[in-house]
Amino acid sequence: MTQTRTAAPPGLMPGLMMDRPLLVTQLLSFAAQFHADTEVVTRTVEGPIERLTYAAMWARTQKLANALIGLGVKPGDRVATLAWNTGRHMELYYAVAGIGAICHTINPRLSGDQMRYILNHAEDCVLFFDLTFADAVAENCKGANSLKARVALTDAAHKPAQPALSDVLTYEELIAGHADTFDFPEFDENTAASLCYTSGTTGNPKGVLYSHRALMLHSFAVCTSATMGLSVHDRALPVVPMFHVNAWGMPYAAPMSGCNLVMPGAKLDGPSLFELMDTEGVTCSQGVPTVWMALLATMREKGRKPKALQRVLVGGAAVSEMLIDAFEKEFGVAVNHAWGMTEMTPLGVVNTLKPKFLDQPRDQQMPQKLKQGRAVYGVDLRITDEAGHVLPNDGKSAGHLQVRGPWIVKRYFKSEETPLTVDGWFDTGDIATIDPDGYMQITDRAKDVIKSGGEWISSVDLENAALGHPQIAAAAVIGVPHSKWLERPLLICVAKGPERPSLQEMNAFLVTKVPKWWLPDALEYVTAIPLGATGKIQKTKLREQFKDFRAG
Amino acid sequence: MTQTRTAAPPGLMPGLMMDRPLLVTQLLSFAAQFHADTEVVTRTVEGPIERLTYAAMWARTQKLANALIGLGVKPGDRVATLAWNTGRHMELYYAVAGIGAICHTINPRLSGDQMRYILNHAEDCVLFFDLTFADAVAENCKGANSLKARVALTDAAHKPAQPALSDVLTYEELIAGHADTFDFPEFDENTAASLCYTSGTTGNPKGVLYSHRALMLHSFAVCTSATMGLSVHDRALPVVPMFHVNAWGMPYAAPMSGCNLVMPGAKLDGPSLFELMDTEGVTCSQGVPTVWMALLATMREKGRKPKALQRVLVGGAAVSEMLIDAFEKEFGVAVNHAWGMTEMTPLGVVNTLKPKFLDQPRDQQMPQKLKQGRAVYGVDLRITDEAGHVLPNDGKSAGHLQVRGPWIVKRYFKSEETPLTVDGWFDTGDIATIDPDGYMQITDRAKDVIKSGGEWISSVDLENAALGHPQIAAAAVIGVPHSKWLERPLLICVAKGPERPSLQEMNAFLVTKVPKWWLPDALEYVTAIPLGATGKIQKTKLREQFKDFRAG
Repeated sequence: MTQTRTAAPPGLMPGLMMDRPLLVTQLLSFAAQFHADTEVVTRTVEGPIERLTYAAMWARTQKLANALIGLGVKPGDRVATLAWNTGRHMELYYAVAGIGAICHTINPRLSGDQMRYILNHAEDCVLFFDLTFADAVAENCKGANSLKARVALTDAAHKPAQPALSDVLTYEELIAGHADTFDFPEFDENTAASLCYTSGTTGNPKGVLYSHRALMLHSFAVCTSATMGLSVHDRALPVVPMFHVNAWGMPYAAPMSGCNLVMPGAKLDGPSLFELMDTEGVTCSQGVPTVWMALLATMREKGRKPKALQRVLVGGAAVSEMLIDAFEKEFGVAVNHAWGMTEMTPLGVVNTLKPKFLDQPRDQQMPQKLKQGRAVYGVDLRITDEAGHVLPNDGKSAGHLQVRGPWIVKRYFKSEETPLTVDGWFDTGDIATIDPDGYMQITDRAKDVIKSGGEWISSVDLENAALGHPQIAAAAVIGVPHSKWLERPLLICVAKGPERPSLQEMNAFLVTKVPKWWLPDALEYVTAIPLGATGKIQKTKLREQFKDFRAG
Repeated sequence: MTQTRTAAPPGLMPGLMMDRPLLVTQLLSFAAQFHADTEVVTRTVEGPIERLTYAAMWARTQKLANALIGLGVKPGDRVATLAWNTGRHMELYYAVAGIGAICHTINPRLSGDQMRYILNHAEDCVLFFDLTFADAVAENCKGANSLKARVALTDAAHKPAQPALSDVLTYEELIAGHADTFDFPEFDENTAASLCYTSGTTGNPKGVLYSHRALMLHSFAVCTSATMGLSVHDRALPVVPMFHVNAWGMPYAAPMSGCNLVMPGAKLDGPSLFELMDTEGVTCSQGVPTVWMALLATMREKGRKPKALQRVLVGGAAVSEMLIDAFEKEFGVAVNHAWGMTEMTPLGVVNTLKPKFLDQPRDQQMPQKLKQGRAVYGVDLRITDEAGHVLPNDGKSAGHLQVRGPWIVKRYFKSEETPLTVDGWFDTGDIATIDPDGYMQITDRAKDVIKSGGEWISSVDLENAALGHPQIAAAAVIGVPHSKWLERPLLICVAKGPERPSLQEMNAFLVTKVPKWWLPDALEYVTAIPLGATGKIQKTKLREQFKDFRAG
């Protein structure tokens, strides 16, 4: 189905269309002209709600561009941010990229070591930070020799008091004296606009350097109906942070579509989100499952949804049937599953149901809704076997999920190695199926899949099946060596109470949910399953713990 | 508001995203994978309804690509079509562009001289034609020396019988023997993909050479909610012909969005369109006002709309209040105004109402709905005075409408002259206003505007106002010389019956609708207003007829 890479033939004739680069500042300039009174509302870190129109934000962005030049920021320089989703952070996105510099969004949840590593690796020249992170800045900027200036995202009245931050500037003072017009230069659309480091579970974080072109094409894709279908009728609240792959592209897609934005700042708990969504008439929102679990608790407490909320996009981790059912059946809020990666700007697939599924009864729809979704236009998807052969999109064959497209990483920042296959695809590290309707479903991480006699067993499917047992509180599955099958599954469980079902009892339960040959060869009980910072099972720790275990 | 063209600064850093060109064949390849069973339905020229899935069309397109290579078509060659909106015509779009050649869509309504001119000017090497146009082909291909082959878009059973066409091939025989896989090459996205000549009212037609990049970016824009909002839930019937600026991009945007297509073939009368829309569950349609007038007559006759029809996009000429009201109030079908040009791929603006207008009573909405609309994302709009100074977007200042963007013409085919302003904008030849909400309204053609003492009078507004008089059947306004004011309006009318209102009577009527200083200085009655092939008033003829007229 996918196009091969036959080289360009001789004799091609160039088209005669204008040579206009796709640059991100065009988005805000467009919004200022065609959606001048559309709003970006922020719950500020200082407390109050602030309202800006796109016209006002465009003027402030031009003041900031002048201020950045004043600070000595040059094209190609990296400007770091350590900040929540706010209007000021959005102005930084546009002003930094607009002058040809690169907006490096730092994840404040990184450890001090990691933060220092990426500040130095990126050679950031200026750091803009929210007051929440003042202590982290005071602590972690030691030794960040490239930093020429540090700017607190606030006004003079709220300037941080720490002695170690006595030299910091404040954002409002910085931009106050500058003109609100700036002649943004035009340059090649392949120029870098922003930088985000992956939080890899092993090794140092790796930087993904997004181009203007990638961000612009991604924005078009986000605006289509198959993805988020943003429009002038929307008021969108991105819960997913702007330090996490550009808040899934929302700060770019919103001005393109004329959609209003509601920025939650630092308060991401259920009651705060509910209140902001409710008072601001938010229609759609984007975030990870844990955010929706928290909002669900608040909705149940209040017995209603935020008044205008229509739909939420869920990514970052697989969504559960319970969450979909609760949002859709209890509150009438549509849930769309999505999947992407830092290396993918980030959207790869979104699950919107085709008409043929809408006619089905809900229990038949559910398996389809639980899949990650169909490719966003612009992303090529394929699955391959171990030898690199492309597998059929039959919904059954599971293979290495590989992607290709104009917003997929080619190389990491300051790395000479290619992370691509010989034919130019990026291997996601996931194992997935793709069904004949084009819906992709992740079945496992490649490093976690259990290779039993040449066939694959999904550790994730086994874990989910085991979690359905009434006496099991947590479950993990890893592969352990086997003399005949090479690897077989070991089930590791935490019991809810004193009852500990035997392997035979568990398998009698599991056999109704998975193929018989997937059934675990052994069962071990532990007091806790080790989890990482984002709530994912740390299988490397389990493998270490059970490194001498043999299945047969 | 718009960005200036400051040159690129030194020191920029390239981003690290994959170098993937945007090529139109990717659209059909995507649809074959992710919308495999979505349909393209054609009312064939031979008679029967034919149904193809995107998967089947992709296979046939690959057979056609092999067949084109077999015919000796090379990259950069022009392949002409003289054809209705059909599945076969769509396969030609993709196969021709896919091999790096250029699909040249010829307007069958051109005169024989014009057709011969563009066949020779384009140096077309193969001509594909529908049976409807067999006589025109037999007549007009004489002297088209570049043509190596002519192919009738039909099967062996329907091969044309004209002796002058004894050498023609048939499409189905041509592709039948070929493999249904083809390794489409990858090449620069700025490569030409299709060619369409403008039907200029003066001089020879001029060719606009669309690039893959322009068509792809335009497709993204067409899919957004502010434009057509196409989705998997749509069944779209483009009435606007594929020989008229690629049917406003529908054959590209539909596979991108997974929308079904219903192709009307040669039958574009009201009853035929109604019947096809009704039986095929068409949800949205695109065409010029005369099409909708014909459909309206059928809807009124039947007392209902085609069952699933939700919305129509109207372009090519200004839409009237009557048409909007009839569709929306009588039948519940939304009407969206749009505007574009052959030089613009073609969409420039589309009128979808912002929420603030939706809250207004209908009579207050109407002036907004009658405007051409807001810029499609990607198109820059501005209005300038005679000296080229940019005028404010205040909804009152009228100026030369100029456009810029990645799907706007840079130069005409085989022309060395630039049609652009010194700062790189394309002047549309229209006079327009842009209001603070970004809605553009065309007030006149620049060559028709009446320049009275340094101020402009809109001939179109005066004509529309005069048409409101109960005794006036048709009206045209041209500028005539005046010793003091340089130009003043002459009103030229056709009376409905024997009553012929005097200039004083007409002006007493007009003064309630236009500024007093716009009132015509003279009134002449004629038996008919000269109209061109597309129904537009031929003002050049009127100027010739009244060339000795003086207003004072």
